[in-house]
Amino acid sequence: MTNSMRYVSLKANIDGLPKESDFEFKDAPFPELKESQFIAENHFVSVDPGMRSRLSGVTGYAPCVKPGEAVSGFAIGRVLESCNAAYKKGDMVTMGGSWASHSVFGGAGFAFKLPEVDIPASLFLGVLGIPGMTSYFGLKRIGRFQKGDHILVTSAAGPVGATAGQLAKHWGAASVTGIAGSEEKCNWLTEKAGFDTAINYKTESDLAGAISRACPEGVDVLFDNVGNAMIDTVLPMMRFNGRIIVSGQTADYNVPLEERHGIKNTIEFIASRLLMQGLVVFDDIPNFVKAQNEMSILIQEGKLVYKEKIFEGLETLPSAFCGLFKGENFGRQLVKVGSF
Amino acid sequence: MTNSMRYVSLKANIDGLPKESDFEFKDAPFPELKESQFIAENHFVSVDPGMRSRLSGVTGYAPCVKPGEAVSGFAIGRVLESCNAAYKKGDMVTMGGSWASHSVFGGAGFAFKLPEVDIPASLFLGVLGIPGMTSYFGLKRIGRFQKGDHILVTSAAGPVGATAGQLAKHWGAASVTGIAGSEEKCNWLTEKAGFDTAINYKTESDLAGAISRACPEGVDVLFDNVGNAMIDTVLPMMRFNGRIIVSGQTADYNVPLEERHGIKNTIEFIASRLLMQGLVVFDDIPNFVKAQNEMSILIQEGKLVYKEKIFEGLETLPSAFCGLFKGENFGRQLVKVGSF
Repeated sequence: MTNSMRYVSLKANIDGLPKESDFEFKDAPFPELKESQFIAENHFVSVDPGMRSRLSGVTGYAPCVKPGEAVSGFAIGRVLESCNAAYKKGDMVTMGGSWASHSVFGGAGFAFKLPEVDIPASLFLGVLGIPGMTSYFGLKRIGRFQKGDHILVTSAAGPVGATAGQLAKHWGAASVTGIAGSEEKCNWLTEKAGFDTAINYKTESDLAGAISRACPEGVDVLFDNVGNAMIDTVLPMMRFNGRIIVSGQTADYNVPLEERHGIKNTIEFIASRLLMQGLVVFDDIPNFVKAQNEMSILIQEGKLVYKEKIFEGLETLPSAFCGLFKGENFGRQLVKVGSF
Repeated sequence: MTNSMRYVSLKANIDGLPKESDFEFKDAPFPELKESQFIAENHFVSVDPGMRSRLSGVTGYAPCVKPGEAVSGFAIGRVLESCNAAYKKGDMVTMGGSWASHSVFGGAGFAFKLPEVDIPASLFLGVLGIPGMTSYFGLKRIGRFQKGDHILVTSAAGPVGATAGQLAKHWGAASVTGIAGSEEKCNWLTEKAGFDTAINYKTESDLAGAISRACPEGVDVLFDNVGNAMIDTVLPMMRFNGRIIVSGQTADYNVPLEERHGIKNTIEFIASRLLMQGLVVFDDIPNFVKAQNEMSILIQEGKLVYKEKIFEGLETLPSAFCGLFKGENFGRQLVKVGSF
């Protein structure tokens, strides 16, 4: 075992669409561990659209990655050395780590030991990780899901959307409609993931009309991962007491503020007593285990399906991340790091 | 007593700013009362900015007034004749009535008998009526008011805003800031209504800067009566877990949808876990009496002040209504109808 780590560093704050040349690889020796820290060898690292805003230098809902620093990212790995009594050498953990061969847990923040269940570890970065928790608590806490609701999910073939639609269906939604960006994705949603209808926004010239045909009774819960233009389109179709979950803004992250679509149909908030609320799933960490147990059973019974795409090797991280914004990705995008 | 009534009729659906020529006066005999109906002679009728959208012919949160029909409006009056066991001849009532000498209560909808308290009847169209109830339930139910909150109120010198700011202060807000459209209004807010700060948006060239100086710790609850541009301006100043009450959109009612300001700063919903919700106070009718009792005591103790402007005579109704959109009105605008 060498005592050095290799990591992906941000060259400069990103403006516009991220490109591979925004990143470079660096090496560093292991840091001296302080009390409550541990170091783990990464097995899987995830790439997430939500990371985009943290690379911009504009303060957002999480600290920004500074140029020269390792890019932070969710990781699963095995503890190599620990100064934290809660994590022992050999433990498998998931954590807010780094795009790197190793992650150093700083003592605070997001980390937990993987439960000993018969579930592939990589799922704790996907359907049972932050995306799946976002689906679960987005629907329950922000969406105030009720049996009989009509649900519309955007970025529906993504790991958040696909899980949200399936959970809604499992919990008794009256209908679940998904919006995605290819025929392949739409077919998967209706044929494998149990969505009632899937709309391909790339080939649909009248998106509002297509949503209206798919949801003739309107929408109780919009689980939005896209952004302002989508919300504005759906607002007039929201049902009385409808809820809008602001979960992500993939279409807006790379657009300067002044060029973004602005939401105009706000009269609907009064007319239909709508509620719109932002979701950051880290607020729900104390309840993760309960949700993971519930969802593990669904997975084992084959009632909750997922797609994941695993890239091989640390060097694929920048391209895997940049690919997220080309709409070509399908399923949870992970990078397998090192050998284990 | 004649058995005919005079009323204000809408000539045609209104497009843009309302003008007096959009209305005309008509006479009609009393209708034959059916079961559960009553007829009352109006004492006071109110003019409300929220009526604007109901005169447009575009379906909104309440049925539209059709051309040729009497314009609906809140009224206080005395029951003349009743086929409804809950309302007897001679009762003083407040109700969803008409811009008319008389109101016919159709058996359903909004009406209640005035309690026998030592409070001028007209207040049940203002600080103790729909505007005051909007303030109370806007803060409590939609704003999820908590002691120690920093509150920002727009249209602050209007009957909803002025009451909201005072209630917030009375309930223990850390600070209350109001935005209004004249020095006279701003002075009244700070000198009479106990607001900590008042901002004159008409003379303030940098509204965002002025709000930021008035609310250096940010805003927990934005009680907005204005519309999209105001909400977009305040969004970056909202505090963690902040709430936006969509109570009215005075600045947007007369602007075609495509020309309205669109809200772009929605990233703040995620960053600060914001909640925005529409308010229609009729949802709170079952709780009105409790709120009115609580607020009556504050009024009698001089702890809740109000402004009202009373126009004399039915014929002033169209001009009183059109004046609402010129920003010249100050306080609750009522029209005294008939002699009593």
